[in-house]
Amino acid sequence: MTIPIVSISGKSNTGKTTLIEKMIPELNRRGYRVATIKHTTHGFDIDREGKDSWRHKKAGAQITVVASPKRATVIEDMDRDLEIAELRDRYISGVDIILSEGFKGNPLPKIEVFRPEVHPDPLYTKEDNLIAVVGEAGQDRGVPWFAPEDVKGIVDLVENLYLKEINIS
Amino acid sequence: MTIPIVSISGKSNTGKTTLIEKMIPELNRRGYRVATIKHTTHGFDIDREGKDSWRHKKAGAQITVVASPKRATVIEDMDRDLEIAELRDRYISGVDIILSEGFKGNPLPKIEVFRPEVHPDPLYTKEDNLIAVVGEAGQDRGVPWFAPEDVKGIVDLVENLYLKEINIS
Repeated sequence: MTIPIVSISGKSNTGKTTLIEKMIPELNRRGYRVATIKHTTHGFDIDREGKDSWRHKKAGAQITVVASPKRATVIEDMDRDLEIAELRDRYISGVDIILSEGFKGNPLPKIEVFRPEVHPDPLYTKEDNLIAVVGEAGQDRGVPWFAPEDVKGIVDLVENLYLKEINIS
Repeated sequence: MTIPIVSISGKSNTGKTTLIEKMIPELNRRGYRVATIKHTTHGFDIDREGKDSWRHKKAGAQITVVASPKRATVIEDMDRDLEIAELRDRYISGVDIILSEGFKGNPLPKIEVFRPEVHPDPLYTKEDNLIAVVGEAGQDRGVPWFAPEDVKGIVDLVENLYLKEINIS
């Protein structure tokens, strides 16, 4: 079964990461295992200078894996910008749902975090597979609105749409 | 085809990471793509406090992927200490050879980095699948010895043992 992906969308500084931080423990509490995929266009270097893994990568390793009994970390060079479904198929297994952040123009179901005081124009419509808006209600977008603190309501929607069939089968 | 793994072994402070750092560019120069797998028994936290990926993990995500056009980083919780072959099958593709460091008691072909002035006793014998020793010659171990600076000789051996058939086929 393909693991469902819900995209937490919105312009910068609207609170996407904060919403994801609240949704994960609520999903965990209901027994679901969660993965996240974050896309960033600017370079990033998660590794620390001087560590062995950093030395391996710097010497020219295409992939470096660091494994301990509790955690594995993989750093892999890419020759192109992978689609989110490719990243899922390559790296994600053993979870029930994926929350994504930062992928633009994708066909995934989307929850838009909308703060008109930061960015007045919404990003998506129902035609973009928008399933909900998080923020102050105000415009008719044809989808449910949730206040940012209504994490239970947001997760209820996600559970009903993408996770319920797991319980039935 | 299974990607070959060569284990760079030896006690602490013998120069394993330094040897790997020298072998990778020599392998790259000969046209081979290289991955590394490092095992560590103590915990490590490659991620940086405050970054979004760190916030996702801390909130309870089992797997967090951060992707840019040039690099992907995966941080995954483990419920047990995976074998090196399991790590290879899970995370490594698209390379010709894997150099590993820090896995003890494995059946892999091994190059032992041996510095008697740091640790007087050798770790492995030919029966442990030892294929070479790097360090000052001095004991008969029944396998080739190489000086630490003879990276070309070491890579020649690895290429002849594990990479030549790729060229022929």
